[in-house]
Amino acid sequence: MTDQIKYVLGEQDIPRTWYNLAADLPGGAPHLHPGTGAEVTVDDLVGIMPVTLAEQELTREAEIEIPEPVRQIYAQWRPSPLFRARRLERVLNTPARIYYKYEGGSPAGSHKPNTAIAQAYYNKQAGVTRLATETGAGQWGSSLSLAGALFGLDVTVYMVKVSYHQKPYRRMLMETYGARCVPSPSTETAAGRAILAEDPDCPGSLGIATSEAIEVAAGDAGTNYGGGSVLNHVLLHQTVIGQEAIAQFALADDYPDIVIGCTGGGSNFGGLTFPFLGEQLRGGRKVRVIAAEPESCPTMTRGSFAYDFGDTAGLTPLLKMHTLGHSFMPPPVHAGGLRYHGMAPLVSEALDQNLIEAAAVNQLNCFASGIAFARSEGIVPAPESTHAIEIAVREAIKCREENTSRTILFGLSGHGHFDLGAYEAYLSGSLRDEALDPAVLSEALAKLPGLVDA
Amino acid sequence: MTDQIKYVLGEQDIPRTWYNLAADLPGGAPHLHPGTGAEVTVDDLVGIMPVTLAEQELTREAEIEIPEPVRQIYAQWRPSPLFRARRLERVLNTPARIYYKYEGGSPAGSHKPNTAIAQAYYNKQAGVTRLATETGAGQWGSSLSLAGALFGLDVTVYMVKVSYHQKPYRRMLMETYGARCVPSPSTETAAGRAILAEDPDCPGSLGIATSEAIEVAAGDAGTNYGGGSVLNHVLLHQTVIGQEAIAQFALADDYPDIVIGCTGGGSNFGGLTFPFLGEQLRGGRKVRVIAAEPESCPTMTRGSFAYDFGDTAGLTPLLKMHTLGHSFMPPPVHAGGLRYHGMAPLVSEALDQNLIEAAAVNQLNCFASGIAFARSEGIVPAPESTHAIEIAVREAIKCREENTSRTILFGLSGHGHFDLGAYEAYLSGSLRDEALDPAVLSEALAKLPGLVDA
Repeated sequence: MTDQIKYVLGEQDIPRTWYNLAADLPGGAPHLHPGTGAEVTVDDLVGIMPVTLAEQELTREAEIEIPEPVRQIYAQWRPSPLFRARRLERVLNTPARIYYKYEGGSPAGSHKPNTAIAQAYYNKQAGVTRLATETGAGQWGSSLSLAGALFGLDVTVYMVKVSYHQKPYRRMLMETYGARCVPSPSTETAAGRAILAEDPDCPGSLGIATSEAIEVAAGDAGTNYGGGSVLNHVLLHQTVIGQEAIAQFALADDYPDIVIGCTGGGSNFGGLTFPFLGEQLRGGRKVRVIAAEPESCPTMTRGSFAYDFGDTAGLTPLLKMHTLGHSFMPPPVHAGGLRYHGMAPLVSEALDQNLIEAAAVNQLNCFASGIAFARSEGIVPAPESTHAIEIAVREAIKCREENTSRTILFGLSGHGHFDLGAYEAYLSGSLRDEALDPAVLSEALAKLPGLVDA
Repeated sequence: MTDQIKYVLGEQDIPRTWYNLAADLPGGAPHLHPGTGAEVTVDDLVGIMPVTLAEQELTREAEIEIPEPVRQIYAQWRPSPLFRARRLERVLNTPARIYYKYEGGSPAGSHKPNTAIAQAYYNKQAGVTRLATETGAGQWGSSLSLAGALFGLDVTVYMVKVSYHQKPYRRMLMETYGARCVPSPSTETAAGRAILAEDPDCPGSLGIATSEAIEVAAGDAGTNYGGGSVLNHVLLHQTVIGQEAIAQFALADDYPDIVIGCTGGGSNFGGLTFPFLGEQLRGGRKVRVIAAEPESCPTMTRGSFAYDFGDTAGLTPLLKMHTLGHSFMPPPVHAGGLRYHGMAPLVSEALDQNLIEAAAVNQLNCFASGIAFARSEGIVPAPESTHAIEIAVREAIKCREENTSRTILFGLSGHGHFDLGAYEAYLSGSLRDEALDPAVLSEALAKLPGLVDA
């Protein structure tokens, strides 16, 4: 065909290793033990994850072999397609060449199974029988539920209470996979009970749900924790995305000038962009990398670069990251996957070293671009993914204004079939631009100094 | 990899022609004009569809060229994958080799865009500006809405009222694509108003919604009708599915002994099985072909083979088909796409000639098999597709009991992300087995004789 729109690879082209940016990124601050403040070791982590994953969390090795049983399951939807957005280009009347790497073809509808399958595999190997985790909008919870079903592990998901009620279909998906889904804060954990004692109507947050899941995993020998983002080994598993994209650009005889990903905890973004950054750090072609975050939860554009907890109760290791403070409660934007106070340490370090840029976008513009994308490319994007689309659209319009062609790649991390209520709200004019309350942000940031003796 | 689970083809392998079973199937009764009883001509159809589609409806040519712009859009998700269900085989402990052809990767989540894209293309070429159609569960309505967005056509969808309220996400998907979705029966048409005058609380049916759409298309020169199933040209467009499957079985060095599809109007079933039947009719290998229908709407297992209308008001041509009578109102099973009183004339003719078998399955068994499939293969199937899964599971268990290996192929026509409410009802024990009322069936069947002077 004359106008190719899809670049596919074969099953044999599924990457055989994950790529670890820590091997090529100079510097970087270690995770610290929340009690002692000492550098975290494998031994500190094995209470909540198998040795293999703990080692992956801390290693600086560049390439980690992907187990064959994991690749076999990946093969169901991987290599994921790289699309050329020719119809969107025409709508925007831009000389830019726009590509997107689509992860919504996984059975759970997002990139999250890339790590869920790996984590379930290693836990099964280690004799674990149950996984506990948190979820916001439900992309992660449904992915770990899927992985649990495939490996015969029980899965308990603490789902942020407001999302639990707003997105019943996500809960039903987890239950269809056989998982148990609990609205958080719950009475099942000390962390949950403490929050409920203070505020019985607390709508929950990812930080609180994480505390619940970690508490359960730490307190039970047969139960481990499954992390959906932020941690090094989670981002590691997602790097199949970017590695495939590089191979697909070779097929297209093209290479991106700009790579864009949306960022909540950073796993979709890191998965897509780290392999490109790795090429650059090893002397390859330079790319402009942009992290797209919501204005209402502007971790990288308005947060501090500091040690902070990954959860509300302070059970996780202290992580050096861009953070709004672990007590920060973001407004209820529809992109639930982006409502997290922190950012993956590896992404934060890359930002601090000016290897990447961050841009904050508002919800209404994101939905406008999401609709334009759906009506030209046919795929209804997840609200999270619309943040990347919005930046891609801006860059494509800039190309038109400057009469310059650039190659733009963005990550379409998932489809929006579970989020159509948000689209309806947008189309009916009832969707608001959730503003950040500066006082809430100041208060949360003020709690950061002193967490670690500098 | 040792255990291949996916058989993929390249963009160049998208079929270049659609396959018309009418060319190889001897006999077959023509469509008749509802007023005169004469054989329908192209001229009779051009009031509601472009000449190209009217010709495709009536031709006995074996191969119809697929326009290149249609193939270009197909390329976004076609060739669709053929999967080997190795994990399901292990769960069933069967020597059978089970394969499924998955159509849920299309942007609308089902096989329906295969014809929606083609119909929108031909209508756009003919200068039409608006399409009207009906939809039950919403798979077809959302697919035509998608196609309308891609070709710049306005789309109005008359959605069966009970589904309109039960499945709001499907309506929202159509609106996100820019279509207008109207609960049927509506006050917008004479057909709708007549029904409402008799029963203001009428929950609607596919037959009624079809009457509304055809009335609108017939009454407005710029508006045409988009058919989601039943008609010859619709089944024709779906044959890309089976043609690809044949090429994929060559890759797998295997060939099905049994091919199974679920049947509502027959387009998913015809699309998958007709190319296999064509091979057989032209002297190739014989396959056992099974049509899976709901016990609550048993068109082929308990209907008459007679001339009947495709809609309630009697606006369509008279079609020779297996039918429960155009006034038949099926119970509200969750597989909305299978709640249709008739069956495609080509499928009906194949059944009458014993080229295929039909089997009726009940809702509870279908959901049980659907859950088993979701937990082993990862993909949550559409309620319609669970009917094919249920038959495939039965055949696989028979292989175990007979200690024989057979190759079983079934069509997984779509995913169930919009139908999770039904899964929740099943898991919570509140899902009922919707029984057919014999009196309702008898009354509907009694109206058939006399429609045509024999």
